[in-house]
Amino acid sequence: MLTNRVCKLIKRPSPGLVTRDIFEFSDEPAPEPGPNQFRIKIEYISLDPAMRGWMTDAKSYVEPVELGAVMRAYAAGHIDASNNPDFKVGDAVQGVIGVQQYALSSGKGIVKVDTKQAPLERWVGGLGMPGWTAYFGLLDVGKPLPGETVVVSAASGAVGSVVGQIAKLKGCRTVGIAGGPEKCRYVVEELGFDACVDYKAGDLDAALRAAAPKGIDVYFESVGGEILDTVLLQMNLFGRIPVCGLISAYNATTVPDGPKNLRVVLTQRLTMRGLIVFDWADRVPEANRELGAWHKAGKLRMREDIRSGGIDAYPEVLNLLYTSGNFGKLVLKV
Amino acid sequence: MLTNRVCKLIKRPSPGLVTRDIFEFSDEPAPEPGPNQFRIKIEYISLDPAMRGWMTDAKSYVEPVELGAVMRAYAAGHIDASNNPDFKVGDAVQGVIGVQQYALSSGKGIVKVDTKQAPLERWVGGLGMPGWTAYFGLLDVGKPLPGETVVVSAASGAVGSVVGQIAKLKGCRTVGIAGGPEKCRYVVEELGFDACVDYKAGDLDAALRAAAPKGIDVYFESVGGEILDTVLLQMNLFGRIPVCGLISAYNATTVPDGPKNLRVVLTQRLTMRGLIVFDWADRVPEANRELGAWHKAGKLRMREDIRSGGIDAYPEVLNLLYTSGNFGKLVLKV
Repeated sequence: MLTNRVCKLIKRPSPGLVTRDIFEFSDEPAPEPGPNQFRIKIEYISLDPAMRGWMTDAKSYVEPVELGAVMRAYAAGHIDASNNPDFKVGDAVQGVIGVQQYALSSGKGIVKVDTKQAPLERWVGGLGMPGWTAYFGLLDVGKPLPGETVVVSAASGAVGSVVGQIAKLKGCRTVGIAGGPEKCRYVVEELGFDACVDYKAGDLDAALRAAAPKGIDVYFESVGGEILDTVLLQMNLFGRIPVCGLISAYNATTVPDGPKNLRVVLTQRLTMRGLIVFDWADRVPEANRELGAWHKAGKLRMREDIRSGGIDAYPEVLNLLYTSGNFGKLVLKV
Repeated sequence: MLTNRVCKLIKRPSPGLVTRDIFEFSDEPAPEPGPNQFRIKIEYISLDPAMRGWMTDAKSYVEPVELGAVMRAYAAGHIDASNNPDFKVGDAVQGVIGVQQYALSSGKGIVKVDTKQAPLERWVGGLGMPGWTAYFGLLDVGKPLPGETVVVSAASGAVGSVVGQIAKLKGCRTVGIAGGPEKCRYVVEELGFDACVDYKAGDLDAALRAAAPKGIDVYFESVGGEILDTVLLQMNLFGRIPVCGLISAYNATTVPDGPKNLRVVLTQRLTMRGLIVFDWADRVPEANRELGAWHKAGKLRMREDIRSGGIDAYPEVLNLLYTSGNFGKLVLKV
């Protein structure tokens, strides 16, 4: 009989990095599809910064994962059994499936993907939720105009890498912020940003002023903390700050201080706006069409950081996100 | 010969409250109008939180006051000498005139006001710049919808008192935040807010939850600091935060911490936007028309806190703003 390795959340996390003891790993019989259902054999699990929030019961944009339930995750795989005429054995699919080897679905929230257009792992990355976040966050919230300067934090990451490339396509000067010379080189040489500043190299303020000499019109925020404070002082009048994440705070053991330079929001009349990609659910086809076309034309490059170890490696692989241990979209191979 | 008592800025302020030694008070001959000029005899000087910023040379929305120059101030008075056909002796006027007894002008930025409609001191308050700030900040940035809950900090102040009354006129549940029972009573009983929470009474969070049981859709921000942090946790999805001031930080001796709960901007998809009334300069006639009509109809109540002591009392009277020592729009009588 087929077994299904499953990762369940059994405790709420303490502040700090995620620890193994809040999960239970077990072997269960793989579920058999009932009427109209199909079974997905999961191959790639997406590791997303938001997962930390899904584990806690703090008020947030989605319900927390219930204790005892399979840990929530975006993932992709192929259908290996089906009683649903719309989803056939062999179809490649993507959706919220969970940290496990097999999942049942009746199709809700499951999207078929074309692995001839891009490999399966890319459909949980730059051509999936992170790509949509970049697309709507930059264009709808950041509203960049040609000639403006767009600064992107976590520039080598799944969202940031797409944000910067779209900004270039829209005629902006595009400056990344990333950790370490290797990531910065990748951001400039592979992704085509105009410049990339290494926040680990010290004096971020001076480096950013050199890279963005006309000031910053749009700051795509994924990190928070000191980087936000530094960027705020360089924002131009009427600048926009789409806030897509504040990863520096997600695993903090104490509530971190907010930006000391918030007064700049007033003096420069900035707009800071939080965004969650689910709010644009009805426009995902538009994003897929645009991102797919840019990808096909070779104008949108992306990189996955695929880790092995299977279901049991989930906690340690997830933590790489919060320690900047990944380079490219972090994916767990099942 | 007529003398002009003048307050000049001679030093940049140190952090903390404004001190007397950064000003020089002197008697000068009152200026005589040249061709096309007129002279204003100043009667009321407006004390505004922004003055603290005008004294420093930090990057801000207007040029700092130069050292050796008359301290900048909104003020109102009557023309007592004129060579300008558009401005006659006896006309009541308002504008950026300075902390002094007499000022020359050729008319730029000077607005004639009708003292039959409202007394002169009101034209530097709720019917002047603070009223315009309330009008554009609430309606253009806050965009309140009927039935929504609007929370207003510094609710008994020049801007906040008008914000709340406009919110009521637009069909919103309107909740003020003010310091002390007397101000709170005034906000509810005189200004007609639905409720007012005393931030000095302790447990602001619980008091605010009781006063705004359906959560907060618009928070009109003038203070920053802990009040902002408390409000953030009660903001509804897609809430708006017009930022008109952050008075709690203006005189801080160290840079204060920013909001610890900034993550709510992300999770609730809030929009936080800074505003300076000068950005709506071309729409001031609209604001004057609307505010004037509401005032005339008795739907817009306001209160001035007029202090005596003349030009020489300027530093001490100004500091009342930063110590919550005023009740109503703070005005210095010359």
